[in-house]
Amino acid sequence: MIDSRKIAVLLLSGGIDSATTAAFALSNGFNISALTFSYGQRHGIEIESAKKLCRHFAINKQIIIDIPMEIFSSSALLADSSGIPKNRDISSILSHAGTITNDSELNNINVINDKKIPSTYVPGRNILFLSYALSYAESVGSRDIFIGVNALDYSGYPDCRPEFIASFEAMANTGTKAGVLGDSFKIHAPLLKLKKSEIIKLGKELGVDFSLTHSCYDPDENGSSCGECDSCQIRINGFLEAGINDPTVYKKK
Amino acid sequence: MIDSRKIAVLLLSGGIDSATTAAFALSNGFNISALTFSYGQRHGIEIESAKKLCRHFAINKQIIIDIPMEIFSSSALLADSSGIPKNRDISSILSHAGTITNDSELNNINVINDKKIPSTYVPGRNILFLSYALSYAESVGSRDIFIGVNALDYSGYPDCRPEFIASFEAMANTGTKAGVLGDSFKIHAPLLKLKKSEIIKLGKELGVDFSLTHSCYDPDENGSSCGECDSCQIRINGFLEAGINDPTVYKKK
Repeated sequence: MIDSRKIAVLLLSGGIDSATTAAFALSNGFNISALTFSYGQRHGIEIESAKKLCRHFAINKQIIIDIPMEIFSSSALLADSSGIPKNRDISSILSHAGTITNDSELNNINVINDKKIPSTYVPGRNILFLSYALSYAESVGSRDIFIGVNALDYSGYPDCRPEFIASFEAMANTGTKAGVLGDSFKIHAPLLKLKKSEIIKLGKELGVDFSLTHSCYDPDENGSSCGECDSCQIRINGFLEAGINDPTVYKKK
Repeated sequence: MIDSRKIAVLLLSGGIDSATTAAFALSNGFNISALTFSYGQRHGIEIESAKKLCRHFAINKQIIIDIPMEIFSSSALLADSSGIPKNRDISSILSHAGTITNDSELNNINVINDKKIPSTYVPGRNILFLSYALSYAESVGSRDIFIGVNALDYSGYPDCRPEFIASFEAMANTGTKAGVLGDSFKIHAPLLKLKKSEIIKLGKELGVDFSLTHSCYDPDENGSSCGECDSCQIRINGFLEAGINDPTVYKKK
């Protein structure tokens, strides 16, 4: 499946998904250059996780890119914590998990109405991050870009669907020198159709140290995870389902 | 043609094309928010031009965005001046100017072989810049993005073709909340099929002060234009063809 070029450009956030994607790319023989973004996210601690993961994986190229906060200004993820949903019914967040396996259903699960797109949606985030990866990839001669999106768990982000990934890849090959010359870019999203528990199992198999990863949207000043936001709940549920111990320290309630 | 929303997000470089595009958007009733990029371009003076143009047009929102230099590291535009072509035959640069008027021909003029893509190509530049414009537009509720690309003069950039603009727009409407909800983004490229002389005439009509614009890829330390690079030659030729005085100060040879 994977064209074994030497360098892959990876979007590394510091979460479970990008950590597992890194392990997957490495296991497929790529050398990784990692891009990590600082964009005023409340969970700035994830950037520290991304740095630790680079050491863990012996990735020796990581570029931290600052995005001016006002670019993404309308997302709850970037404002005060009041907009971050807490203690929601996990079944509503995960309503589609594990039940959908083909692309057309995956594309349609989350676009029906406004209410299905979470308030933590960040405008055009994956488009911007992939665009950075694309420019950097072309600059260094790489044609392989890895992103850890998945469409099943926590459905609702338009930029985590197979249709979007395909559309970005087509655009990339229309608007770059390499692309128009037929030396095409490939956007790899190996987790696209996996449930969180499956991602955790895969990461475990590939040797990911999950104690280095961070998921919480709303950590306290010590970096402890809240255990209540959607992201914490999906993480907790994923480890439970996978039957694997979650090394995360959650705040005592 | 233009859906008259209130806010348009404009990519403003400080050159003739983006200045004329700004005037065009304003004349169509938009309020402009301008994005200007600092990416280690040799002609950093163009950022000063972009600031002056904002004052000229009374644009009160301009965001200057820093792109880490290594993202674009392979372009001659960003390195030492030795890679910038000088005193090339203007007819070879402008070989297609004014002769092609339909989209399919425009799409095909510059993708035949590597040699037709200039060394001043910057990997994925317009993709990255448009992605910033898209995120910001969605954040502030704008659905209109303006870019001053043109495919005719100085053909050879893959990210200045109608096919690319259409592809980006399709991707944008697949990967954003507004797009998937049917509140589509429009990428306006009003100069796409104009020659430089036609752009200059249009800008003049719309009141652009061209003395504030900058084109040279390789200005000296005083900001004087070289008069020899492709961009200077296209500018000089464009003003000549338009029968309009070029206010630029060129270095004495």
